[in-house]
Amino acid sequence: MLPIMPKTKSLPAARIAPSILSADFARLGEEVKNVLAAGADWIHFDVMDNHYVPNLTIGPMVCEAIRPLTNAPIDVHLMVEPVDAIVPMFAKAGANIITFHPEASRHVDRTLGLIREHGCKAGLVLNPATSLSYLDHVMDKIDIILLMSVNPGFGGQSFIPGTLDKLRAVRTRIDQHVENGGQSIDLEVDGGVKIDNIREIRAAGADAFVAGSAIFGKPDYAAIIKQLREQIALAGG
Amino acid sequence: MLPIMPKTKSLPAARIAPSILSADFARLGEEVKNVLAAGADWIHFDVMDNHYVPNLTIGPMVCEAIRPLTNAPIDVHLMVEPVDAIVPMFAKAGANIITFHPEASRHVDRTLGLIREHGCKAGLVLNPATSLSYLDHVMDKIDIILLMSVNPGFGGQSFIPGTLDKLRAVRTRIDQHVENGGQSIDLEVDGGVKIDNIREIRAAGADAFVAGSAIFGKPDYAAIIKQLREQIALAGG
Amino acid sequence: MLPIMPKTKSLPAARIAPSILSADFARLGEEVKNVLAAGADWIHFDVMDNHYVPNLTIGPMVCEAIRPLTNAPIDVHLMVEPVDAIVPMFAKAGANIITFHPEASRHVDRTLGLIREHGCKAGLVLNPATSLSYLDHVMDKIDIILLMSVNPGFGGQSFIPGTLDKLRAVRTRIDQHVENGGQSIDLEVDGGVKIDNIREIRAAGADAFVAGSAIFGKPDYAAIIKQLREQIALAGG
Amino acid sequence: MLPIMPKTKSLPAARIAPSILSADFARLGEEVKNVLAAGADWIHFDVMDNHYVPNLTIGPMVCEAIRPLTNAPIDVHLMVEPVDAIVPMFAKAGANIITFHPEASRHVDRTLGLIREHGCKAGLVLNPATSLSYLDHVMDKIDIILLMSVNPGFGGQSFIPGTLDKLRAVRTRIDQHVENGGQSIDLEVDGGVKIDNIREIRAAGADAFVAGSAIFGKPDYAAIIKQLREQIALAGG
Amino acid sequence: MLPIMPKTKSLPAARIAPSILSADFARLGEEVKNVLAAGADWIHFDVMDNHYVPNLTIGPMVCEAIRPLTNAPIDVHLMVEPVDAIVPMFAKAGANIITFHPEASRHVDRTLGLIREHGCKAGLVLNPATSLSYLDHVMDKIDIILLMSVNPGFGGQSFIPGTLDKLRAVRTRIDQHVENGGQSIDLEVDGGVKIDNIREIRAAGADAFVAGSAIFGKPDYAAIIKQLREQIALAGG
Amino acid sequence: MLPIMPKTKSLPAARIAPSILSADFARLGEEVKNVLAAGADWIHFDVMDNHYVPNLTIGPMVCEAIRPLTNAPIDVHLMVEPVDAIVPMFAKAGANIITFHPEASRHVDRTLGLIREHGCKAGLVLNPATSLSYLDHVMDKIDIILLMSVNPGFGGQSFIPGTLDKLRAVRTRIDQHVENGGQSIDLEVDGGVKIDNIREIRAAGADAFVAGSAIFGKPDYAAIIKQLREQIALAGG
Repeated sequence: MLPIMPKTKSLPAARIAPSILSADFARLGEEVKNVLAAGADWIHFDVMDNHYVPNLTIGPMVCEAIRPLTNAPIDVHLMVEPVDAIVPMFAKAGANIITFHPEASRHVDRTLGLIREHGCKAGLVLNPATSLSYLDHVMDKIDIILLMSVNPGFGGQSFIPGTLDKLRAVRTRIDQHVENGGQSIDLEVDGGVKIDNIREIRAAGADAFVAGSAIFGKPDYAAIIKQLREQIALAGG
Repeated sequence: MLPIMPKTKSLPAARIAPSILSADFARLGEEVKNVLAAGADWIHFDVMDNHYVPNLTIGPMVCEAIRPLTNAPIDVHLMVEPVDAIVPMFAKAGANIITFHPEASRHVDRTLGLIREHGCKAGLVLNPATSLSYLDHVMDKIDIILLMSVNPGFGGQSFIPGTLDKLRAVRTRIDQHVENGGQSIDLEVDGGVKIDNIREIRAAGADAFVAGSAIFGKPDYAAIIKQLREQIALAGG
Repeated sequence: MLPIMPKTKSLPAARIAPSILSADFARLGEEVKNVLAAGADWIHFDVMDNHYVPNLTIGPMVCEAIRPLTNAPIDVHLMVEPVDAIVPMFAKAGANIITFHPEASRHVDRTLGLIREHGCKAGLVLNPATSLSYLDHVMDKIDIILLMSVNPGFGGQSFIPGTLDKLRAVRTRIDQHVENGGQSIDLEVDGGVKIDNIREIRAAGADAFVAGSAIFGKPDYAAIIKQLREQIALAGG
Repeated sequence: MLPIMPKTKSLPAARIAPSILSADFARLGEEVKNVLAAGADWIHFDVMDNHYVPNLTIGPMVCEAIRPLTNAPIDVHLMVEPVDAIVPMFAKAGANIITFHPEASRHVDRTLGLIREHGCKAGLVLNPATSLSYLDHVMDKIDIILLMSVNPGFGGQSFIPGTLDKLRAVRTRIDQHVENGGQSIDLEVDGGVKIDNIREIRAAGADAFVAGSAIFGKPDYAAIIKQLREQIALAGG
Repeated sequence: MLPIMPKTKSLPAARIAPSILSADFARLGEEVKNVLAAGADWIHFDVMDNHYVPNLTIGPMVCEAIRPLTNAPIDVHLMVEPVDAIVPMFAKAGANIITFHPEASRHVDRTLGLIREHGCKAGLVLNPATSLSYLDHVMDKIDIILLMSVNPGFGGQSFIPGTLDKLRAVRTRIDQHVENGGQSIDLEVDGGVKIDNIREIRAAGADAFVAGSAIFGKPDYAAIIKQLREQIALAGG
Repeated sequence: MLPIMPKTKSLPAARIAPSILSADFARLGEEVKNVLAAGADWIHFDVMDNHYVPNLTIGPMVCEAIRPLTNAPIDVHLMVEPVDAIVPMFAKAGANIITFHPEASRHVDRTLGLIREHGCKAGLVLNPATSLSYLDHVMDKIDIILLMSVNPGFGGQSFIPGTLDKLRAVRTRIDQHVENGGQSIDLEVDGGVKIDNIREIRAAGADAFVAGSAIFGKPDYAAIIKQLREQIALAGG
């Protein structure tokens, strides 16, 4: 394992974003309220269409059902192809953040604009093997970058170690962008985030952490979120 | 309006199948239990993939979440394309009945066989404009025929009147099939079924009735299901 | 050749619909004005997307450009797939009639409704090999049926003789529909219509005639349209 | 089992068409020569593209390799989608008959014409659940109709019994077509044809019989083909 | 705004390429002749297929109609997917330059070769968010690079400022390529080019300028083209 | 031509991989045995599905047929889209190496993992115009990189000279990866490899050489393979 050294440059505050993919769908409202009461920051909402990924999960109507239960940001990760038609549906259903995979849209700049025009924060998601070159010409148009640390489609997978180097590379890009007067950009990571690896993930530069089975699979959400935050703190904040 | 005359030949017992598309997704387990306690027979489960229809709803994981709550049949209507890959996922998630649109599968006979091999009842769904000729060579392979009385994709639409003639035509086909020694086949209808039209829908030959907003939009599920059954009884049973 | 016997039941008045696919696209406005001045009834507008057919022609902006030049109906034939997204674009561009191929829409009833909601007459187009079973459940929702007498995609092809039988069969369906109190439905034919065959096409039951190279390829539009009408009259009106 | 009654009207001579899908691909030329020497009439060539069916088999170059070995007809069954682009490749590779599935071509009449323009016999293949309505407007354009008695994609499946009724219905259509002065049309069947069922298949009206594992799985091709012909003869010719 | 400094290295002569997407399609020939008489260099021809972009415009037949009216280069921008089949159609219709989007072709090198084999100049178009890495292995095979400064699909959009940096980066690549003995490559820009920004666009390295509404929306084409050239001259040539 | 200088760092041993696309498909087993007896190292197996490339060749059943004839590695190049479903079919059919094009899989990391889970070596194939950025995040997951030196789809094309620079760039990446403790990665080249260019291809860093018509088109396989190896040796090993 690489030595974990806190970065001297302070990172943005860390956000915990439980993925409701691992929640009990029979009592989703209760799960959402409980996990936020336990200290979660965002609700991560995984949308799969059985085309971009080989699974089908939940759509805008489910988002609309949980919207009245909280003011916390609903962070919608679109694993769908094509992207544009579903964006207004999620914006209307109450999404605050909408991210998509650039390979799934022919007109990435337009889709980013479309999300923002609908009042949401916009971002790109990069699969484990996806090149960072997709970021080259959109840094001034995105609010968030989501790095997948597993291949999307299913919960319960293990964190891909190569993601740490990729996080460091994106953190560097974001810091340079901000130093050059650019807007701030969140750096989120999704897949296999656990108590025993979140410290090094934080150290690599992430500031938003999706966790599914790590949280919803456990009896005490508050305890696990507290532990995650303690590990994050050990990475230097 | 056509005069409603009870058919002299007795129809199979009527089943009420509330569509959870109109339920509250934040407390789906509770909704399912309540509607079954109120007298519903089946749970109708609408799966949309944003490709076959312009909406995305709920997938196998949601089915799996409600499965432990009841022994009532879960009646899965696949509005997806292609069909085959998702069939085993729903069978494993606890579906009892799986129906699909024949236009969405290149090998309709194979898909019907696949559903049955996975231990589920199999059926075809016909859109309002879809020809009955899709039934010509599969009558001995299906357990159910679902006629759409609205165009699938959204809840809350009005019943298309031409469906009554289509129901009568399919009822005749089913009766002839049974008279020739064939197995029984359910005849389900979905879209805009309400208290004020279920009597004539029953009279036209339906024996399973999907109702979404007609039930879940109302305060007293038992009262509305009772009224639906009373109207069905007026059609002669 | 089959003997040409005028039908005793009088047909609706015949309409001549020159296809601008054979016009000079460099001076389309002039062509449109000339052909209408020469006695044409409708402007037939062939839209190809290089997916439903292996050619790409003209879209909504071209329709919009000719709209101010005339009050004659613009009859848009969509050879595109999928259909729904382009319907509002053509309605806004001034189309009066919009027809599409049922194989190109998963929800034929919805697409017909969409066209009518946008204030246009709606119809289905049937390819030479396409079954009439597509008409079974939409007769009360359509204003026009267009039978292709060539395979769409290119101008200048020869009339497929089997279309005459198909026209007779559709004419019978329409007549029965009207006798049963249904609305009137136009019966249009497109492909290889010429002076030497329009009489038997009329006798087979058509009441709207698309003609491309038969008109635009000739020096005197009025003369050719007059000849076409004379042949139609010989079929009994 | 239905009683097997020889038809009084004599059927066309029976052709045996071994499917090389069951041959040894490592010595295909030898297999082809052996099976023809053993009395086979045609070589049946199954083309799968992993899109129309979930398997990929052999393409034009393999056809080209066996073409010089025989003058017997090579009967190419295209299980591909789309169809048109591959037709000239197979015609050039020496195919004599090319059949395709009508659902796989938007312009069935054009594809039939394309095959004939390239000098091959043209036909449609109907899957087990596919409606005969696809034949309504092409009877004068086809040389052969192939009924699938299994779902295409793999060898070694069992004959679907409902195919017998479908064969009888198509035989009636062909006989009527010929009585009305139409050209002759072959009626081929493919899937699970064996010694113990070929008699009733013949009696139902087939005149060309694809057999894969029934022949190539056996040590003595001549013996098995002789037995198949004997069974055919018992059906009255 | 960045200071506009003329490059010391002289740029290739500037070409003005009016996009006929903004012309009057009812009198396209006249528009083409007028704008060329007013000093335009190329005719820019926008082809949209309603699949790669959500609009459908004009195809090969329209190109063929304007070809006889001028010897000026017709510069065809293919916003279509897939690309290869339509290339020969446009070459035959008289195109001189054909550009396409690399995401729309699986075999970019082959498509470039195909265009050149048909006697046209070949180029790639990069969307606003598209990476320059698509250029890495094709610099010796292209005659032109077109940078989109809006998301393609519609006229009348505003210039995306980030395009200036992208132009500078591509200009550097081209200059290095030429210094290393490579062929010359044009650098075109399309989207929101106006009198008030063409100077800085030129300074960033563009040598061909598509302008649609900036020209065709104005009463005096010659005057506006003259102004555009004056601004270009202010950038140092 | 660039001067051919042997690299001082020794390359991995060279492997010759004859492509059976150029063999005689009528006696494929014999061809495979002969070419291996003549000194070939691998059998290169070209799979085309008529979707990713405009040709259809051979699938898993052909692989299965030649598997028992040799222990030499079967090196399967998938020119198919999508990729995942066919991987287990080829693994079961006896493939040792499976390579695919990253543009043809939405989840490249998953597909690489899938191939390895099935016990095969995994690799990416890059088309002539495809960027090396696809390699950025998968170097620790691949056993082989295949550079196309022609556009895939057909045999008999000429080597694209720009491939030499690309080979050098990939060789540098691989060497750095190994120096940093990474696993070894083969570097294969496919397309137009001949006696008169294999020396410079080797010098550019390739260690596996696909040759089709260069070998199978010749009367003496052993003689040509010997000549290829002699040229390779001239490049310094």
